[in-house]
Amino acid sequence: MLVHAYGAHAADKPLEFLQITRRTPGTHDVQIDIAFCGVCHSDLHQVRAEWEGTQFPCVPGHEIVGRVSAVGAHVSDFKIGDLVGVGCIVDSCKHCADCEAGFENYCDGMVGTYNAPTKDEPGWTLGGYSQKIVVHERFALRIRHAEDQLAAVAPLLCAGITTYSPLRHWEAGPGKKVGVVGIGGLGHMGIKLAHAMGAHVVAFTTSDSKREAAKALGADEVVVSRNPGEMAAHAQSFDFILNTVAAPHDLDAFLALLKRDGTMTLVGAPATPHPSPNVFNLITKRRSIAGSMIGGIPETQEMLDFCAEHGIVADIELIRADEINEAYERMLKGDVKYRFVIDTATLAA
Amino acid sequence: MLVHAYGAHAADKPLEFLQITRRTPGTHDVQIDIAFCGVCHSDLHQVRAEWEGTQFPCVPGHEIVGRVSAVGAHVSDFKIGDLVGVGCIVDSCKHCADCEAGFENYCDGMVGTYNAPTKDEPGWTLGGYSQKIVVHERFALRIRHAEDQLAAVAPLLCAGITTYSPLRHWEAGPGKKVGVVGIGGLGHMGIKLAHAMGAHVVAFTTSDSKREAAKALGADEVVVSRNPGEMAAHAQSFDFILNTVAAPHDLDAFLALLKRDGTMTLVGAPATPHPSPNVFNLITKRRSIAGSMIGGIPETQEMLDFCAEHGIVADIELIRADEINEAYERMLKGDVKYRFVIDTATLAA
Repeated sequence: MLVHAYGAHAADKPLEFLQITRRTPGTHDVQIDIAFCGVCHSDLHQVRAEWEGTQFPCVPGHEIVGRVSAVGAHVSDFKIGDLVGVGCIVDSCKHCADCEAGFENYCDGMVGTYNAPTKDEPGWTLGGYSQKIVVHERFALRIRHAEDQLAAVAPLLCAGITTYSPLRHWEAGPGKKVGVVGIGGLGHMGIKLAHAMGAHVVAFTTSDSKREAAKALGADEVVVSRNPGEMAAHAQSFDFILNTVAAPHDLDAFLALLKRDGTMTLVGAPATPHPSPNVFNLITKRRSIAGSMIGGIPETQEMLDFCAEHGIVADIELIRADEINEAYERMLKGDVKYRFVIDTATLAA
Repeated sequence: MLVHAYGAHAADKPLEFLQITRRTPGTHDVQIDIAFCGVCHSDLHQVRAEWEGTQFPCVPGHEIVGRVSAVGAHVSDFKIGDLVGVGCIVDSCKHCADCEAGFENYCDGMVGTYNAPTKDEPGWTLGGYSQKIVVHERFALRIRHAEDQLAAVAPLLCAGITTYSPLRHWEAGPGKKVGVVGIGGLGHMGIKLAHAMGAHVVAFTTSDSKREAAKALGADEVVVSRNPGEMAAHAQSFDFILNTVAAPHDLDAFLALLKRDGTMTLVGAPATPHPSPNVFNLITKRRSIAGSMIGGIPETQEMLDFCAEHGIVADIELIRADEINEAYERMLKGDVKYRFVIDTATLAA
């Protein structure tokens, strides 16, 4: 079926109105009428071909929420009218050790929600800046938030799970001191989630102007990372630091804040490398630098349920589809608190 | 008391015969007549002032074995004649969280066996290239090996514990695939220990000529890391990689061999940084790069007991004290299998 979408025909072209094709739901498929789609920095990287291998036309978007509008014959967990979400993954091999453990995000056959090979037209996946999407039921998530929160739920599907998964894996919780570096789309979710998990949360920002905002999000303390004195006061005190900053920066300044056996986990990958971290900072306190990518499907459901239970949504600015190019420019300037979300009803016209 | 030693008066001077002072044992001290002292690459770095802050005269040596020749009034665990060892640590604050947990190696007040501040003359610690040493009983280790193995036990006090500690911490054992990068003083112990722990051990070397030697040490497989085909055959298969190479090198080649949640732990710190590792290699499989430094005192005793039980000692070449300068030159060329050990009886003359 033909549906309306917003995407780009080339890396140097703005996004514009498009018509794309969605497959007829198969026996295990769920068809979703998309209500809202969050705007992730990855969308911009991909559509502007700042990452390798972008196929055009490119329709970004992997923070998708909406209602089930059709189900395949063998779908038992979802019915028409259900509130559901789709995140960064629309398929995987489903039988490797990672998939069997619920880590579809680490499956070598993971199919991303956009720009990944698929049998569907046109041969690569097209994302959530569109009216409908069809996915295997395994990759649809149930949303238990109230319907009036739906737009603000959308960013949980990427920004939420990308921060929730490492916070859980490295056991953020009561008695733990957890740092969150960067207060953007990911970082603002990291602060909310770590706070809800019961950790003592310290937000790191380069901007003194973000102090109050970070506290409002749930940070117990805020450190301006450009201030060596403030940083030194926290030396060797953190159990875990979630680093959401993708721009190359000095990792050593944060490694020195970890206590023995502490870990700093990176969830952003810089286009050019970070300065090489000092091995002494790892060796002298048995510290680790790790990476984490999104989260698996069972964990994404767990995150959505956790957020519904704790009343957690993203802080968003709702936009029309035709405002996306302007939104990208503002996102590049950090001028968003903290996530743009497209109202996909504006694609109907 | 005055004892004979071997050390250097300046960074650019060879090591030579010296006389140094050891303190009279205090109530909690153990005085040890040193029988053998291993030669660690750190000794060379320190005595040649390749690391900051070397004080001269400098007497290196932190792989010390010998017999107790006097004990303080309150020492109950050791008596004259006991076979004991001293490793890299001769004191610590003894009351911080790290010390209380038996991680004296991570205590901020850790006192290294040489070149660390002390109240003893001349104001900094002097190491094991000497006839006697006096240490607090907490830092003396019991040796349960047969006496004729004593020289080959010496390197366990640094090379042994430095590899044992991370292998245990990251749970090398049956069902685990463990890599050991570098087959030198540390690496040859890493292979022996990982093998004895029951892991499937893969040794990585840059030299095809070391294949048989690595297998003889206990490696199940040997990979020449300069051979991309051999490396690719092990992609995403390791639970843990112990990297003993201190020279700057490409960490990404090894990170790519870790499976999901795998860790590569560095135990050597390069003088200039490694090329910055690719964050994608961390993120895509939730991998970690960690560091580890020596081991705590309880763990060092555990290691010595483990080695005694499994018949593990280092492969050594015994030298006279006056051969140390030549030994350093050979060590720099990698011309030692795998550890020089000084027979300190040769200091008597």
